[in-house]
Amino acid sequence: MSSEFEIIDRYFKKKMKQTALGVGDDAAIINIKKNREIVISSDMLVENVHFLKNTNPARLGWKSLAVNLSDIAAMGATPRWATLSISLPKINHGWLKEFSKGFFKCADQFGIDLIGGDTTKGPLTISITTMGDIKKNKSLLRSGAKINDDIWVTGQLGMASMGLASLQGTLKLAPSLKVKCIKALETPTPKVLIGSHLSRYANSCIDISDGLVQDLKHVLKASTVGASLLLNEIPCDPFIHASKKYQFALNGGDDYELLFTAQKKHRLAIEKIAKKTDTAINIIGVITKNKNLKIMDQKGKSISFNKRGFDHFA
Amino acid sequence: MSSEFEIIDRYFKKKMKQTALGVGDDAAIINIKKNREIVISSDMLVENVHFLKNTNPARLGWKSLAVNLSDIAAMGATPRWATLSISLPKINHGWLKEFSKGFFKCADQFGIDLIGGDTTKGPLTISITTMGDIKKNKSLLRSGAKINDDIWVTGQLGMASMGLASLQGTLKLAPSLKVKCIKALETPTPKVLIGSHLSRYANSCIDISDGLVQDLKHVLKASTVGASLLLNEIPCDPFIHASKKYQFALNGGDDYELLFTAQKKHRLAIEKIAKKTDTAINIIGVITKNKNLKIMDQKGKSISFNKRGFDHFA
Repeated sequence: MSSEFEIIDRYFKKKMKQTALGVGDDAAIINIKKNREIVISSDMLVENVHFLKNTNPARLGWKSLAVNLSDIAAMGATPRWATLSISLPKINHGWLKEFSKGFFKCADQFGIDLIGGDTTKGPLTISITTMGDIKKNKSLLRSGAKINDDIWVTGQLGMASMGLASLQGTLKLAPSLKVKCIKALETPTPKVLIGSHLSRYANSCIDISDGLVQDLKHVLKASTVGASLLLNEIPCDPFIHASKKYQFALNGGDDYELLFTAQKKHRLAIEKIAKKTDTAINIIGVITKNKNLKIMDQKGKSISFNKRGFDHFA
Repeated sequence: MSSEFEIIDRYFKKKMKQTALGVGDDAAIINIKKNREIVISSDMLVENVHFLKNTNPARLGWKSLAVNLSDIAAMGATPRWATLSISLPKINHGWLKEFSKGFFKCADQFGIDLIGGDTTKGPLTISITTMGDIKKNKSLLRSGAKINDDIWVTGQLGMASMGLASLQGTLKLAPSLKVKCIKALETPTPKVLIGSHLSRYANSCIDISDGLVQDLKHVLKASTVGASLLLNEIPCDPFIHASKKYQFALNGGDDYELLFTAQKKHRLAIEKIAKKTDTAINIIGVITKNKNLKIMDQKGKSISFNKRGFDHFA
């Protein structure tokens, strides 16, 4: 039977591009350029909690890393390094081959070195820590939103949660939309490219992983401000507008889009960055002095929403 | 029911001592001094694989961090930061309180900031990434052992694996020794204090987590050398010598002692460091040109050993 060391050699050892010492010793070593600081984030994905049993391993490998890169992007930093710890019920070479293929597809696309980790027996659990760097004191925090800031979001919201609902049989979608939603759920694109450009213009940023409402509330609380959103401006598939199933866009998890706030005077500059990085962006509302979160329909009436975002213990 | 955020606030948010930004945003931020580099290690501990069901949570909290610090110590670096990802079958406040108490007892003793992580539902799994720093190009690698180097080990070997065997009912120990062995198993002391002093004198270093033989073999392979060990010099409890149960000292896992090699001329300096850091150390053999690993009994006869060290997939 293969040992832990053989698995690492076979599936998880690759040439390092920006790392002093990678996989194979007690620890990895990285160097940081002058006037840069290090940004670190960890995520854990558990079978049957964060992904369904029998999820395609290549897509799971992609997503495991992507969700972590999203956090680094939300800081305005450039992700560079990751460690991967994984527990597996048994050694399945077909599964490992596909998982590592998906993982490295994402790693290569965004320039990440896998520098270490752990492999062990256990229920299928994937734990990743990603590190990036950014110019000192330039990180985008949740606490930086200012009154009258525009509230921007990237991409389309609600796609991943519709994909999950459709896989679980609680939502019926047209075949082509279903494919799109499952793709959003299983292989999200972390907004790394635009993220590292935002720190020049944005005042605050967060990645939308637990649903727009819940994640925006984190920003509002940290910044001690409120927000007013226009329901019609929230970027989502026409199906959501037509069916009024706004809960997917407002509370659906797993979007991995960025929400950021910035002064109105930066609109043009931000649109330029979005174009340059081929990222769809939209202004969905404004930061307010009043500390509530209001969502207005097209008639200007405030709508109510009573569901919290995704919470693994709820 | 408590949410993920309440759990983090309640049990895992502490004042940072050496961190630009800790728990609470998308990612943490750390700064590194000039001419230092960062050393990173990850470990994953799974219930029923790395620890028994119903292990005391405070001791588990200690050990989860300690095993990771041991890897940083084995690089000759100073551990400073950790992220903790944990999946739990359900929220048990008594368990969380004790686990975090044990975790922070270890963190405080060795000066570690908990800077981030993840908390989720799932089978009990603990995944930690630890970061430390060291002067540039001064890390101790497995590949640095030189012919004629002394082979040193800290502490006593085999204690933890005897503790495990006694808990599993396959080894009978006198009550006082049993207590000592279970303590070694459940609350190992990572050799952080001596570790950060070794880089001046040692040529190579590794932490003994999978058993002396297996871990020494990693050093020999990476350094393309061999070794000759004196069985009688291997520091272990008199019970092992008396009962000839050397398999615990040679192949037992979970010791978290350091094995390092250094030129003979540094003996005095190393002994001084050991005294200063209150660390027991012993020379157990020598690095040889012949690429085998030989273990000699007190009559100078080579003994055979056929068990590999601990491997989670074996």
